[in-house]
Amino acid sequence: MINKKLKVGIVGGTGYTGVELLRLLAVHPQVALTAITSRGEAGLAVADMFPSLRGYVDLTFTDPAQANLDQCDVVFFATPHGVAMSQAQALLDANVKVIDLAADFRLQDTAIFEKWYKMPHSCPTVLQESVYGIPELYREQIKSAKVIGNPGCYPTTVLLGLAPLLEQGLIDLTAPIIADAKSGVSGAGRKAEVATLFAESSDNMKAYGVSGHRHHPEIHAQLTQLAGQPVQFIFVPHLIPMIRGMLSTIYVKLSEQAKALDLQALFEKRYQHERFVDVLPAGVFPETRSVRGSNQIRIALHKQVETGYLTLVVVQDNLVKGAAGQAIQNMNIMFNLAENTGLEVVPLLP
Amino acid sequence: MINKKLKVGIVGGTGYTGVELLRLLAVHPQVALTAITSRGEAGLAVADMFPSLRGYVDLTFTDPAQANLDQCDVVFFATPHGVAMSQAQALLDANVKVIDLAADFRLQDTAIFEKWYKMPHSCPTVLQESVYGIPELYREQIKSAKVIGNPGCYPTTVLLGLAPLLEQGLIDLTAPIIADAKSGVSGAGRKAEVATLFAESSDNMKAYGVSGHRHHPEIHAQLTQLAGQPVQFIFVPHLIPMIRGMLSTIYVKLSEQAKALDLQALFEKRYQHERFVDVLPAGVFPETRSVRGSNQIRIALHKQVETGYLTLVVVQDNLVKGAAGQAIQNMNIMFNLAENTGLEVVPLLP
Amino acid sequence: MINKKLKVGIVGGTGYTGVELLRLLAVHPQVALTAITSRGEAGLAVADMFPSLRGYVDLTFTDPAQANLDQCDVVFFATPHGVAMSQAQALLDANVKVIDLAADFRLQDTAIFEKWYKMPHSCPTVLQESVYGIPELYREQIKSAKVIGNPGCYPTTVLLGLAPLLEQGLIDLTAPIIADAKSGVSGAGRKAEVATLFAESSDNMKAYGVSGHRHHPEIHAQLTQLAGQPVQFIFVPHLIPMIRGMLSTIYVKLSEQAKALDLQALFEKRYQHERFVDVLPAGVFPETRSVRGSNQIRIALHKQVETGYLTLVVVQDNLVKGAAGQAIQNMNIMFNLAENTGLEVVPLLP
Amino acid sequence: MINKKLKVGIVGGTGYTGVELLRLLAVHPQVALTAITSRGEAGLAVADMFPSLRGYVDLTFTDPAQANLDQCDVVFFATPHGVAMSQAQALLDANVKVIDLAADFRLQDTAIFEKWYKMPHSCPTVLQESVYGIPELYREQIKSAKVIGNPGCYPTTVLLGLAPLLEQGLIDLTAPIIADAKSGVSGAGRKAEVATLFAESSDNMKAYGVSGHRHHPEIHAQLTQLAGQPVQFIFVPHLIPMIRGMLSTIYVKLSEQAKALDLQALFEKRYQHERFVDVLPAGVFPETRSVRGSNQIRIALHKQVETGYLTLVVVQDNLVKGAAGQAIQNMNIMFNLAENTGLEVVPLLP
Repeated sequence: MINKKLKVGIVGGTGYTGVELLRLLAVHPQVALTAITSRGEAGLAVADMFPSLRGYVDLTFTDPAQANLDQCDVVFFATPHGVAMSQAQALLDANVKVIDLAADFRLQDTAIFEKWYKMPHSCPTVLQESVYGIPELYREQIKSAKVIGNPGCYPTTVLLGLAPLLEQGLIDLTAPIIADAKSGVSGAGRKAEVATLFAESSDNMKAYGVSGHRHHPEIHAQLTQLAGQPVQFIFVPHLIPMIRGMLSTIYVKLSEQAKALDLQALFEKRYQHERFVDVLPAGVFPETRSVRGSNQIRIALHKQVETGYLTLVVVQDNLVKGAAGQAIQNMNIMFNLAENTGLEVVPLLP
Repeated sequence: MINKKLKVGIVGGTGYTGVELLRLLAVHPQVALTAITSRGEAGLAVADMFPSLRGYVDLTFTDPAQANLDQCDVVFFATPHGVAMSQAQALLDANVKVIDLAADFRLQDTAIFEKWYKMPHSCPTVLQESVYGIPELYREQIKSAKVIGNPGCYPTTVLLGLAPLLEQGLIDLTAPIIADAKSGVSGAGRKAEVATLFAESSDNMKAYGVSGHRHHPEIHAQLTQLAGQPVQFIFVPHLIPMIRGMLSTIYVKLSEQAKALDLQALFEKRYQHERFVDVLPAGVFPETRSVRGSNQIRIALHKQVETGYLTLVVVQDNLVKGAAGQAIQNMNIMFNLAENTGLEVVPLLP
Repeated sequence: MINKKLKVGIVGGTGYTGVELLRLLAVHPQVALTAITSRGEAGLAVADMFPSLRGYVDLTFTDPAQANLDQCDVVFFATPHGVAMSQAQALLDANVKVIDLAADFRLQDTAIFEKWYKMPHSCPTVLQESVYGIPELYREQIKSAKVIGNPGCYPTTVLLGLAPLLEQGLIDLTAPIIADAKSGVSGAGRKAEVATLFAESSDNMKAYGVSGHRHHPEIHAQLTQLAGQPVQFIFVPHLIPMIRGMLSTIYVKLSEQAKALDLQALFEKRYQHERFVDVLPAGVFPETRSVRGSNQIRIALHKQVETGYLTLVVVQDNLVKGAAGQAIQNMNIMFNLAENTGLEVVPLLP
Repeated sequence: MINKKLKVGIVGGTGYTGVELLRLLAVHPQVALTAITSRGEAGLAVADMFPSLRGYVDLTFTDPAQANLDQCDVVFFATPHGVAMSQAQALLDANVKVIDLAADFRLQDTAIFEKWYKMPHSCPTVLQESVYGIPELYREQIKSAKVIGNPGCYPTTVLLGLAPLLEQGLIDLTAPIIADAKSGVSGAGRKAEVATLFAESSDNMKAYGVSGHRHHPEIHAQLTQLAGQPVQFIFVPHLIPMIRGMLSTIYVKLSEQAKALDLQALFEKRYQHERFVDVLPAGVFPETRSVRGSNQIRIALHKQVETGYLTLVVVQDNLVKGAAGQAIQNMNIMFNLAENTGLEVVPLLP
């Protein structure tokens, strides 16, 4: 517990991860929202853009140049890729911690970053000391981290789904790991685009990025790390007509050893002390709405005896555990707060 | 502030108002959930029916006969019409307060109740001492009430929209008040019915109850009470393809006096100390999602100079301010808690 | 019946009214699609933009300058306001008929046009000879028209709903006519805008244009015409989370004479020979999906005895009877085809 | 071509496949709808239950006992499993052809039928001469068939997706074929059930049948047939918040031979003369709405070079090509009509 509230700044508060940070931080008992920047909306009251925040957020969007972010304890970047890396060093120099919700600090291999994000990486030194922000995998490193690369939405589902297996070498890696992932439309962000109009994406679905999606290299790198050896990985994301919610169905070939194990028990044990990871009872499969608005991730597994494969189904709210909630979970750890502070939001069902 | 938590029972916890009470009460700091009854689901863990509550509600549905509700401080009825009135007297005798979310205590005129609900009223004595549960209209009576008739979802929007005008006699009552109301599908409840299937009510809308809806007599009685004289009232509800949310568009003919007044200022003044009533700035109109999951009600008004009419637009979450949230607000008042205790849930947007 | 097919051109085929014209005209037995223009998409195959048309439309978008529209028999303008009036005279000179789905030929009063559309009217002469394209009201004039101003989507519901009453003087016009209208999101067009993104407009609704909508003057002018005297009119449109569909709930004060009449019979008689106007049986109210994809309009009425008001509920598909279907109905009349040619599309339910 | 119209009966016209048959058959130029039966709704006009059919279908539901189905040329069964097999023999004896949209004639192995459908198969003799109704695979047999087992919705997507590969032995069958399938909610039928209520299944998704779905043995049997050898098959269906539409993402390991082939060309060639199978250009992936309301199926493929796997994406309208449309396509073939008669419905987009 700390005596005074954390001073928190948000760079780029007009997108969905931005407003989600605001929703959660506005009632976080240890946080004082200090500054929210937006070049385009400077001067506008935040609650005028997001009426849901009327009565909760009194701040006005500030021009980044005048936001005095160096006075904060921590700054979240809810910006396009490339912004955080241009400002991180200056903030670190001012003893401000940085949590980036874009991709700048997710990929340690800058060549891969540059290939997928079409820009050079401008601060490889900071990148090297940054930590990939999944607390259930990297909690110790997060405790002392100064810069967090908050994961993309898809990776969290795949990595937490597979970690118990990969950590124990229970996947037969001669076959590819296949992740068939589904996301609500908010995952595409709050950009004016024809493809995500209501009349285009309602009552409709599609696969996209079949030939290549930016989360592929991110997941692939982490899977390799967890496996300690090369991994083949097929990833197909789909766009689903729901606002929030993400469900990944994952298919893996079990090792001979794994076929004989009680994998349900293995998963329950692996996550027994994790507040935000819920392994469902055997035979129960999760709906995305069971985590709507909350930081929970729910996992179910089913062993297909005839084929020797395991099917995993993992759900999360793409904007919470998949973005803003996990970022706050990281903040809580970095500042030695109880990890669930401000995150005990009961899912909204129906 | 009180020293020990309120012991709370819920009769009928398997519908949408039931699960919504659970969502809010599970994290209410002054409440200990003591019993949830369901004849049909006795023995089932609540969180098995509503996985959103895993980790928040450990209770199991109990058969009503074995629930020991007389040990509670307060019992909510989230049941079909007719149940609360059959059990209220016994609970009152045991010094338990009652908040009914069905219609048993909404209509003081039992003849009207019997006409619309097709059943005799079995406890008119309790009815007489019950209070209609809109805090912004009847806060003083609620403080000392033992039985609350929690309003229907539609009435709260119409009554809070019109109260500032009716209290001041600013409507020309020679013309009918017209309320064109729209509700999300959860308003129809969690009953297995063809008409509210996804494939029937998605991408579709309709008016219903055009020739008579049960909320018409309820609103009419309250309007007459507020006006102190007879009122003509036309009410047409519509079913909208959204889960939650209610929007009422109300058309009234202004009195000559009203035409000259600053009605925006009048509304702002009337509700300036009400935590849950938000009068929007002139020219701004509300979306239903701006209150999703929260107890807020938002009101906007527009004076149509050419016709001498006023148009009001009022939104709420039908399950919160329109049902469970308002019920908890009433409970807070009845037990002398801060009125917003457990109700500071930031709306979920997007 | 004609011997050879009509040569049809479409200017601006990339929006929702454009693709809807294509859907219907592609299988219209008397139509040969000749040219579809789009400045921005010239050279792109139509079916590459709209895969639903693969196998039905082989055309490629053409630059307007090279489209040889003067070779057509008729040209539809599915363009922003202002385009049709700049090209109409030249087409007329080439003996090509014009059907404009935008607003250029809807308002005979150019001052009103200029006030609401913020542009001068560039061809008042053509405007004078244009006909407002609701066949059920103006069929005779349409037969010989060379230029049609196809109505806005909302006006058709309100005007066909009220015509039987206004034609007979059955409304007490001392009270305002109130139209509370609801539209699916496709009514906003296929423009990249934040407000109509899926994640913004799904599971959500709102009123808009409360203080003034462009269809108000259009409806008002037509109501005045039908009534033969001044009319007071209140119009509030709402955005509903469905792709297509429009429902208008209309409230009128009946004249003393009307109160005594069988209005149900009056409506049935008025529309008995109209293929596309369906007066529902007494007590039955329409759903929008009952006309999805079709040119039908369905009307129901309910007399409120206590108040002397009549409530009308009218539904249509905003893109068909509210736009492209009605335009083709007009074309059929102008070229002496059976009025329902190409328009017998059974509504898609569910 | 035939001189007089086919007399068509429908048994069980109150579900979604029933109303879909009606939508298509009502305007089929070679069909005279003769009888529609429903035990529960006998006496009700069809258009009173489905207002979309007002003006198109004048029939009234008839009690099955009085429907004189033996006067028909063909009878469709849009009934629960088990009904068609109890009536098929009598109809065949009266020289009436039978098309069953339920499962009675889909599985040649009655032991498997009985395991999955929990009922004995009552007419194995008829079953033996029945034909599995996918025209693109079994057209010759359908021509002379008297009984058709119309496929389940999922199987058509998987089988037409994989047929070009299996027919040529291009899949490495040492690895399982994985089909991750997604269906709109209409696939669950028009039954009153809580799980498919709008407020339950909107803005939400889930996997279901992970441990066993009835379409698994049906697909498995057909895959084995096409492969000519045993096949391993993993099938996970998902429920998606859209009314119609089905998308299957299929993952297969390519044989060494296949890795070197131009599979895009192979697919285009295989389906070049199929009116209802559309192989999309390389790199283009289909949306479900691109086939909404139509009998089209669209297929895209992507070879993942690193893993040697092929990913297929297949979409159809589950009620048309996945049910009623395919049934009519079968009827057209059985009666020597042009295969697309009555099926040239342009998809409804948006």
